[in-house]
Amino acid sequence: MNFIAKEIAEKLNGTVEGDSKVQINKLSKIENAAKGSLTFVANPKYIKFLPKTRASIILISNDLKIKIKHDFTLIRVVDPYVSFTDLLIEFAESKKNNLTGIEKTAKIHSSVKVNKDVYIGHNTVVGEYAQIEEGVKIDSNCVIGKNVKIGKNTFLHSRVSVLEDCKIGSNCILHSGVVIGSDGFGFAPQKSGEYIKIPQIGNVVIKNNVEIGSNTTVDRATLGETIINDGVKLDNLVQIAHNVEIGAHTVIAAQSGIAGSTKIGNYCLIGGQAGIAGHLVIGDNVKIQGQAGVIKNIPNGKSVQGNPAMDYKSYFKSYLLFKKFPDFEFRLRELEKDI
Amino acid sequence: MNFIAKEIAEKLNGTVEGDSKVQINKLSKIENAAKGSLTFVANPKYIKFLPKTRASIILISNDLKIKIKHDFTLIRVVDPYVSFTDLLIEFAESKKNNLTGIEKTAKIHSSVKVNKDVYIGHNTVVGEYAQIEEGVKIDSNCVIGKNVKIGKNTFLHSRVSVLEDCKIGSNCILHSGVVIGSDGFGFAPQKSGEYIKIPQIGNVVIKNNVEIGSNTTVDRATLGETIINDGVKLDNLVQIAHNVEIGAHTVIAAQSGIAGSTKIGNYCLIGGQAGIAGHLVIGDNVKIQGQAGVIKNIPNGKSVQGNPAMDYKSYFKSYLLFKKFPDFEFRLRELEKDI
Amino acid sequence: MNFIAKEIAEKLNGTVEGDSKVQINKLSKIENAAKGSLTFVANPKYIKFLPKTRASIILISNDLKIKIKHDFTLIRVVDPYVSFTDLLIEFAESKKNNLTGIEKTAKIHSSVKVNKDVYIGHNTVVGEYAQIEEGVKIDSNCVIGKNVKIGKNTFLHSRVSVLEDCKIGSNCILHSGVVIGSDGFGFAPQKSGEYIKIPQIGNVVIKNNVEIGSNTTVDRATLGETIINDGVKLDNLVQIAHNVEIGAHTVIAAQSGIAGSTKIGNYCLIGGQAGIAGHLVIGDNVKIQGQAGVIKNIPNGKSVQGNPAMDYKSYFKSYLLFKKFPDFEFRLRELEKDI
Repeated sequence: MNFIAKEIAEKLNGTVEGDSKVQINKLSKIENAAKGSLTFVANPKYIKFLPKTRASIILISNDLKIKIKHDFTLIRVVDPYVSFTDLLIEFAESKKNNLTGIEKTAKIHSSVKVNKDVYIGHNTVVGEYAQIEEGVKIDSNCVIGKNVKIGKNTFLHSRVSVLEDCKIGSNCILHSGVVIGSDGFGFAPQKSGEYIKIPQIGNVVIKNNVEIGSNTTVDRATLGETIINDGVKLDNLVQIAHNVEIGAHTVIAAQSGIAGSTKIGNYCLIGGQAGIAGHLVIGDNVKIQGQAGVIKNIPNGKSVQGNPAMDYKSYFKSYLLFKKFPDFEFRLRELEKDI
Repeated sequence: MNFIAKEIAEKLNGTVEGDSKVQINKLSKIENAAKGSLTFVANPKYIKFLPKTRASIILISNDLKIKIKHDFTLIRVVDPYVSFTDLLIEFAESKKNNLTGIEKTAKIHSSVKVNKDVYIGHNTVVGEYAQIEEGVKIDSNCVIGKNVKIGKNTFLHSRVSVLEDCKIGSNCILHSGVVIGSDGFGFAPQKSGEYIKIPQIGNVVIKNNVEIGSNTTVDRATLGETIINDGVKLDNLVQIAHNVEIGAHTVIAAQSGIAGSTKIGNYCLIGGQAGIAGHLVIGDNVKIQGQAGVIKNIPNGKSVQGNPAMDYKSYFKSYLLFKKFPDFEFRLRELEKDI
Repeated sequence: MNFIAKEIAEKLNGTVEGDSKVQINKLSKIENAAKGSLTFVANPKYIKFLPKTRASIILISNDLKIKIKHDFTLIRVVDPYVSFTDLLIEFAESKKNNLTGIEKTAKIHSSVKVNKDVYIGHNTVVGEYAQIEEGVKIDSNCVIGKNVKIGKNTFLHSRVSVLEDCKIGSNCILHSGVVIGSDGFGFAPQKSGEYIKIPQIGNVVIKNNVEIGSNTTVDRATLGETIINDGVKLDNLVQIAHNVEIGAHTVIAAQSGIAGSTKIGNYCLIGGQAGIAGHLVIGDNVKIQGQAGVIKNIPNGKSVQGNPAMDYKSYFKSYLLFKKFPDFEFRLRELEKDI
């Protein structure tokens, strides 16, 4: 895909300075822009990269003066960052899988009605009574169970499993290797020390505009639903246990895990590798730092760190002193000598 | 699947109070039971939910009096919790994949003998000389390597890989995305700072009644066997390294990792995101708390927390004081002034 | 595969003592060598296992005297450990998948040129313009995207996804369930508290001799490249975020995660379950202990532990005292009483 300076300028309501016919096929950061790239300067501290850049086109604000001699073409716009983001979205659109139809090797159960503009990839299996709404795209080698519903315009990358009875909303993205609806980890301990499996007959309900990172796992509820609300973003390798509910627009970074039946509020930010124990209630707008271990409820708006997690600022105050222990002990010994 | 009050009462040796023809198609907790649900009240503290519940049938003990006016049907039984669990198991059974046969798109090597009541799903590949015992069900898009053995009635969900020479016992459940028998992480450092791969020619042996959560990985031994003993339960995203042995009836929660050649005893409980270093011996009945980092052997029956892991109670005592450091320092300073 | 004592001795320039026709089909450690195994004694402390071993052949140094009566055959060599490693490599070679050709159920886009000695397994999908170089082996149920390049002699185990535009070097090994090129975790927060996806249009570049463990995930760059340099070894369930660069010959143990845009040096050793925050620079030859949480740049050659990570030795000094807090407080109280 190629874009020409003149066309880009028109799109962005900008003006070209230099060769208006130069082509680009790539968007880049200024630090590592090669020939054929378009980049931008929004923050004045990046001006220093201009003399050395090999970019072909640079988006720049209307009033910024360039004093050096240069080969690149400028496109002057009101806000270079906003314009660059607009181009980024356009690039991404142009790369999107816009295939439709059902590959011959896909195995769709005869009870499934598939809309015209749906895409179902090679070797993807779709079970009995599954509902695949319009605009859905499912890449190759996925497995969609019985009675699953996948809402409008949702995109499943390759090798996703959605197990029976699970419901996925519209405009979601599930990355490769995601598993939705595996059994919750529930076992009844016996007097002998052995365990008997507790049947897991609930499901997973994922609302709209949710994105789920690669190889992340979401278990079905024992009874009822494991719920991922609107706009939630889960990174890669995250674990969501049975009967958990994640509040709307909460973001969870990679490798974090939420244990069974915990309810997390809206608009929370959870760092990477954090762990939250089971049966807790985490409020809205809570910040949980990376690697924190949460074992108590957290009220709205609080920020926590450590294991067990405590107030974020207190943790750092204490941790600073943690480093000074050897000195503490020395001072304590000195005092003991003096008395 | 529908159940009628009268039939359920007969099954449970209970008696119906109310409409004996009412149908249910779902089991629910009382807090969120919708119409068409059956639920139960065992613990008196749940009685408060009765006036508002929309459940159609409620299991209740023979002697509990209901004073409110209600629409739901009661089934009176000796122990509502036990009766509910019986129904749960029956529901789960009714939902089980009880398909048999081999899908046309499955690719079974000609050397493999497959029993009549086995199920092998779409696009599942089974390699040379693999042994698939009776009652085994393998869902779609799995890959079973050469010389693999899968014991009676074991269930592999979709997209599981079992690599060559690995042995899986009977009555096991492997969830989607599990990898059994990937190479152990073994490299010989060279003087140049580079690494040369140490061949990993052992295998993985999984005994009976083992359940392994989605996207969990179990590496093959360098030499000999990585062993998962009877009744072990591994949650999602767990890592088991080469030459590890996990003792019988040990339970490991999500995202924990066991490094190479460590031997874990029987009946242990390991919390989520715990890490256990390599070449250790962990006794029987050991409890390892979530996120603990174990770097030493642990004797039978001990409970540990922290990184490096220490006695559980000592950790909490110290941690409580960790929060008071700023106060400690203040007191220390005051004492120093005084002298 | 069977080896005969005489042949093995010839290969290793050794001499047979005992039955030169005995066969073995397995390499084992002496502790658990069964009949039909070959094992070795290099370290004198393993001599104690000789009386009880059931091994059929034992590699032993030229000068070690065996006083006990025994059934096993000896092969005397200069260095038994080196000789055993040579056999290990030969065994591994003999077990390697050396299939060539394209399985009928593989779905290769017509634009793809595939070399003669390539193997592409069942149900593997290869997209438009992908380049599959000579000697590449791709096992079953993989999905290779558009414009992907896979270099010479690289091996992809079953169920790997490599998404569009990603480049993999030569002599790499990707284990089952790996995902290369899923979208980076980038979202622009809106005033409403919702998030908008930032398009991720970069790719992943993996250089030569890289090994990547099962179910590990490597995200594509927002712009530019996520880079895994020569000789890097990633264990299972590792997370590499967008725009990260991992320096040559760095080794990362299982379940560690590297957040966005962080640059890690050459020859580093990163323990299991470590987390490294985004936008950091980690020097060369750095050691990061297991479960460490790194939130600052680290200079060359340093070793760190803890969360936030600090100097390794200081951490252990402080941690030793952490255990003594209750005692500290007691002593402090005593002093306060005295004054």
